[in-house]
Amino acid sequence: MPVSAGQDPISVAVLHGGETPPGLDGAVGDARLRLAATPDELATVLPGCEVLLTWDFTSDAVKQVWDATDTSALRWVHTASAGVDRVAFPALLGSGATLTNSRGVFDRPMAEFVLGAVIAFAKDTARSLALQRERTWRHRETENVAGTVATVVGSGPIGRAVAELLGAVGMRVRLVGRRAAEGVHAFDELPGLLPDTDYLVLAAPLTDDTRGMLHTGTIALLPERARVVNVGRGPLVVQDDLTGALATGRIAGAALDVFEVEPLPADSPLWTMENVLLSPHMSGDVVGWKDMLVALFADNLARFRDGRELRNVVDPERGYVSTGGNQ
Amino acid sequence: MPVSAGQDPISVAVLHGGETPPGLDGAVGDARLRLAATPDELATVLPGCEVLLTWDFTSDAVKQVWDATDTSALRWVHTASAGVDRVAFPALLGSGATLTNSRGVFDRPMAEFVLGAVIAFAKDTARSLALQRERTWRHRETENVAGTVATVVGSGPIGRAVAELLGAVGMRVRLVGRRAAEGVHAFDELPGLLPDTDYLVLAAPLTDDTRGMLHTGTIALLPERARVVNVGRGPLVVQDDLTGALATGRIAGAALDVFEVEPLPADSPLWTMENVLLSPHMSGDVVGWKDMLVALFADNLARFRDGRELRNVVDPERGYVSTGGNQ
Repeated sequence: MPVSAGQDPISVAVLHGGETPPGLDGAVGDARLRLAATPDELATVLPGCEVLLTWDFTSDAVKQVWDATDTSALRWVHTASAGVDRVAFPALLGSGATLTNSRGVFDRPMAEFVLGAVIAFAKDTARSLALQRERTWRHRETENVAGTVATVVGSGPIGRAVAELLGAVGMRVRLVGRRAAEGVHAFDELPGLLPDTDYLVLAAPLTDDTRGMLHTGTIALLPERARVVNVGRGPLVVQDDLTGALATGRIAGAALDVFEVEPLPADSPLWTMENVLLSPHMSGDVVGWKDMLVALFADNLARFRDGRELRNVVDPERGYVSTGGNQ
Repeated sequence: MPVSAGQDPISVAVLHGGETPPGLDGAVGDARLRLAATPDELATVLPGCEVLLTWDFTSDAVKQVWDATDTSALRWVHTASAGVDRVAFPALLGSGATLTNSRGVFDRPMAEFVLGAVIAFAKDTARSLALQRERTWRHRETENVAGTVATVVGSGPIGRAVAELLGAVGMRVRLVGRRAAEGVHAFDELPGLLPDTDYLVLAAPLTDDTRGMLHTGTIALLPERARVVNVGRGPLVVQDDLTGALATGRIAGAALDVFEVEPLPADSPLWTMENVLLSPHMSGDVVGWKDMLVALFADNLARFRDGRELRNVVDPERGYVSTGGNQ
């Protein structure tokens, strides 16, 4: 999908979360950056901009200001995240602006994060740390990782990286995507895969099909020994249902990096559950991630300037990048 | 090394730690088990026994009672551990009794334990759990595992299993053994490998050569970012030296499953160090490990009874199983 542009300096609205993207200024050539940290600021800077970079992927500001703001100049929206759920709303998708994401930056780090959660459960790491605080020497038996069964929902680059890494350590892995393909189970096969699942990994995009996919009904199909690992998006899970299942021991544990509301409210019961490993939406954020995100955006901006095809164009129908291309 | 035996029931002294080996009675046929939990009890039961099983591999009782006890009937000593350091003392080795160990039972579980420690450091798991206890949402950047450098000391089955698993997740692994071999660095090459080591894994047997191998001098060769993982034996490390290096930040962290004195005394400063992951000598002990140990001993006992070659015979010169064979 070539997107041509004139030779005048390009105006780029940048929605950030208070911290301006490090190194962005030096990476975008003569483009004019128009920074915004709040919906009001975004509404002010967005008119006249051809490009919008949503650096703060947790913000709903774009959707909030869209209807009342002149976006007639906008031709490209890039999000500094793999998931596009904050910007892939109908009015934006229907505006003709091209949407791109940061696919590829997070794949391997997120896979390592998932493997870390799996081994932490198997080797009882949280309990070891708790006993360490109490200066208590208490031998326990732990679990094998090799030979256990992982069901990975999401057959995009992140899900594939997770499946590959879990397979490399000897787990039996089933990858579940939207449709069946070689090595990929169709989403409607998932219920049949849950009963012998030891680790259910959610690495799917948040779409109408996947929203709320893990609820009391699907949890009921999991064995009691099962653990859930969610590195996708919080709303893939009906959080109250999962919380209840963890509280009653219906399933054995959960490692949650994403939540329905982020930051997770301080009164959530998840904070204090012993069978929950909780982290603040950071599974993909290894040292250097911001530099990689800036480099990816800068490369796409050069393509935009030259009228070349952009990388990581999101399919407006599906809500994620639907073809191969760079990882 | 065939070990023949008569047709009379075999007498087996069993040194245990208070818990008799589960299922042992049913696994040894008509052998007579003579149980001992203390040095005094061992001194009482050992005379006349052809076989000694040291189920409690943390006890020094065999060495304590050896000189004053009649062991003239003893022809085979089997230890329910990979390390033989508690029984491979000169008087026993020189007695003509064959020494066997439990090589193979712990390899893969220990490798998974080491990988778990590596990922826990890279992904800052202990800090995530500490913040979780405080209900604090604090995003951090974590580290990649792939591409980091591991130096694994110990080229026996455990070290090899560790090296294989760390390699499978994309780490660059150097294996260090007693002597150079294909894919194995000689022990005297170790100083040259330490300066670019991210993770130093100790999985070596405790011998005169390896005792105290990690001390202030060798720690000084490690970069500040290095972490040490010890799943071998505590005395491989001069514990005070390591504790000091961890306290001053000379190195970044340590995951310690073994200690100079076990259980680790409650007043050890290691318990409360934030950069230490401490566990109670359990790295190889997955669910079912006792059954596997009993099965291995029972198989060897049948071989002993029939005069066939025993599995896992320890080389008295080296203090570990020196040839291939079953894993």
